[in-house]
Amino acid sequence: MERIYATYWIETAHEVEVAASAMAGEQSCGTFLKVPGETKELRKKFSAVVENIEILNEKIAPSLPGASVPKGEQNPIWKQAQITLSWPFHNMGANLPNLMATIAGNLFELNQFSGLRLKDISFSESFFKKYKGTKFGIDGTYNLLGFQNRPVIGTIIKPSVGLSPEETANQTQALLEAGIDFFKDDELMGDPPHSVFERRVDAVMECINDHALRTGKKAMFAFNISGDIDDMFRRHDYVLQKGGTCIMASLNWIGLSALAKLNEHTQLPIHGHRNGWGLFYRSPHIGIDYKALQKIWRLAGADHLHTNGIRNKFCETDDSVIASIKACQKEENGKSVMPVISSGQWAGQAVDTYNAIGNTDLMYVAGGGIVGHPSGAAAGVRSIKQAWEAAVAGISLEAYAKEHKELSKALQFFVKHVSK
Amino acid sequence: MERIYATYWIETAHEVEVAASAMAGEQSCGTFLKVPGETKELRKKFSAVVENIEILNEKIAPSLPGASVPKGEQNPIWKQAQITLSWPFHNMGANLPNLMATIAGNLFELNQFSGLRLKDISFSESFFKKYKGTKFGIDGTYNLLGFQNRPVIGTIIKPSVGLSPEETANQTQALLEAGIDFFKDDELMGDPPHSVFERRVDAVMECINDHALRTGKKAMFAFNISGDIDDMFRRHDYVLQKGGTCIMASLNWIGLSALAKLNEHTQLPIHGHRNGWGLFYRSPHIGIDYKALQKIWRLAGADHLHTNGIRNKFCETDDSVIASIKACQKEENGKSVMPVISSGQWAGQAVDTYNAIGNTDLMYVAGGGIVGHPSGAAAGVRSIKQAWEAAVAGISLEAYAKEHKELSKALQFFVKHVSK
Repeated sequence: MERIYATYWIETAHEVEVAASAMAGEQSCGTFLKVPGETKELRKKFSAVVENIEILNEKIAPSLPGASVPKGEQNPIWKQAQITLSWPFHNMGANLPNLMATIAGNLFELNQFSGLRLKDISFSESFFKKYKGTKFGIDGTYNLLGFQNRPVIGTIIKPSVGLSPEETANQTQALLEAGIDFFKDDELMGDPPHSVFERRVDAVMECINDHALRTGKKAMFAFNISGDIDDMFRRHDYVLQKGGTCIMASLNWIGLSALAKLNEHTQLPIHGHRNGWGLFYRSPHIGIDYKALQKIWRLAGADHLHTNGIRNKFCETDDSVIASIKACQKEENGKSVMPVISSGQWAGQAVDTYNAIGNTDLMYVAGGGIVGHPSGAAAGVRSIKQAWEAAVAGISLEAYAKEHKELSKALQFFVKHVSK
Repeated sequence: MERIYATYWIETAHEVEVAASAMAGEQSCGTFLKVPGETKELRKKFSAVVENIEILNEKIAPSLPGASVPKGEQNPIWKQAQITLSWPFHNMGANLPNLMATIAGNLFELNQFSGLRLKDISFSESFFKKYKGTKFGIDGTYNLLGFQNRPVIGTIIKPSVGLSPEETANQTQALLEAGIDFFKDDELMGDPPHSVFERRVDAVMECINDHALRTGKKAMFAFNISGDIDDMFRRHDYVLQKGGTCIMASLNWIGLSALAKLNEHTQLPIHGHRNGWGLFYRSPHIGIDYKALQKIWRLAGADHLHTNGIRNKFCETDDSVIASIKACQKEENGKSVMPVISSGQWAGQAVDTYNAIGNTDLMYVAGGGIVGHPSGAAAGVRSIKQAWEAAVAGISLEAYAKEHKELSKALQFFVKHVSK
């Protein structure tokens, strides 16, 4: 029988087996009192099953407030464990919102737990039949770009908001001349009065198309189409019509049903922006690991997914970043998704990133790390390309910088100004 | 100039003014290095503004990991504060996903903060022009039900999954005869093979329509239509065609863009299920307060919103529950949304709930609290109605129970079996 599996980190004052069973019950055919329709046969056919329990640690105090303790216990031990639950596929059918209600619904509120994180999920075949999932991913993106076997060097148009279409086009032109492969709207830039979406696309695509005609190289611009469904369709169609090759959406805020609908319609890669990710990441005790979340977004259609970068300006650890990049690159139903490395990135993180993941199938997006280079944006792009050449060749940045002046200048400048 | 306001609880080791300004910068026109297009004029026109700072507490250790400390500080003080930021409306335009990227995007990851919760938001007029928002709310729901001035007594069909359409109809029939006003699918029940949506609607609505013909009272059933957009439209239309009066959706998992699209289409109240709410609630240090979240869902179209109930079986505090109920009942753009009180509810919480909120404009949804009543479901419904009569009359449950046998039995039975 087709089943769905989900793995969780939990913390409980109850017996782990008892708490895990309560969770399985709540998320399948249980209620808080036995009810008439709840027969043994029904339980057998529809119950979630506790597949595995691995005890990890013990604590003397709960990590989150609000959890219950076993009756009569004054000073319970709080056990941390990794548990895996499974559900019969027929409980929810191939329906993403219902899957989420099952694996990530009320369970976060269960009073048996003083901590609960969804760590991983494995879909069953019917989900892959129902949902197209990632259409472009890593291979499709490299095909559109016309190269492969090196990182896609990208940047973000900044300031985040406030530029007119003409000012955005001016930056676009300068970055094209600097040799950029990829650029994107900031997630704060959508369709505001000062930069009406269609006018921005017109202005930017004129630069990109002209540059492609002259040089044979067509850079990819991810236009932020986030919004209501009809608006997103219209904006996608406009980008496509003007020769654009990518659209971007804020995945947490358009939501899963809109992403799946968008994926049925799009003929361009969907650059998935994960702003709001801190809500799922920042508490070690409640949330969803990116290993699980990115699988869900891929099923709904994301082609590129943000992962942060190592030594980022946010608070995510390098270990978490590397795990996210690897998770995106891992095939799921025959497709990999393009990891988008960003946040405080410049040439300086290339070697460590390469050494951690062992390949160059990624977007390496630097804002200040490119346009802030002391010799200008072209030198910024070259410094990052040089850093990745050094990484692949197994040469230290410092050694490679001796014969590559843009990298050398980047090392001198950015170490002082931005590295943590 | 039209502005958006958002209030946050924050914790930081930096000067609160400095951290708040960094947040305002990151969420408007800032980047980590000054960039060419970032002029003084642009900053003036597009910057977010720190409107207010109220220092609350100090701690000697950070609540969440990953936050930075001021350079050179070994043992910083971690300040907790409430701050209000505002943005010019023209930064994002009337676009819900872009609004969320602005007020609830990357800021949760900023390393200046060891805690950050979005507490409240105030929209500007243009949002109310763009989005229809709540269409039915409290008044529209009472109109459909044909009564007012008392709670809507509701229940959930249980077990959550596994019943056939016929078995669901049998429960529906029994509950109709018991005098129920409202019932709903469990959020785990959607359109699975064992209870195909249309067959369930057929079976349930036949009972409801027959009962309405005979008695003049039409009960409301919230059918869970959660899924992909086209499926949700199709299911809504089917419910409408069969004479149904409510549809339900898992708001976190269909997402904002789908909810807004659904709201353009629906002719029935949208019963908003908030499963996954624990992700936003459970950590005191990261997340979104319901005061803010329910406003966003109302703008996108929710008519009923879950709030938990006092002494619920989850881990939410009574204070949080009461604040949520009040927030839903408060008018926003001329509409109130129906609070749906549930989780471990029975007659026993009616007086305390009424005393806390001072009115009866709510759904009071009990599962076991109705069908688990020792004298059956009809007695369960009556016990809850009696409890609310006592509450409104200012009489204690115990006193009122002396002359109301269903309430009396409920008190004897449930105090022992379910109260915390």
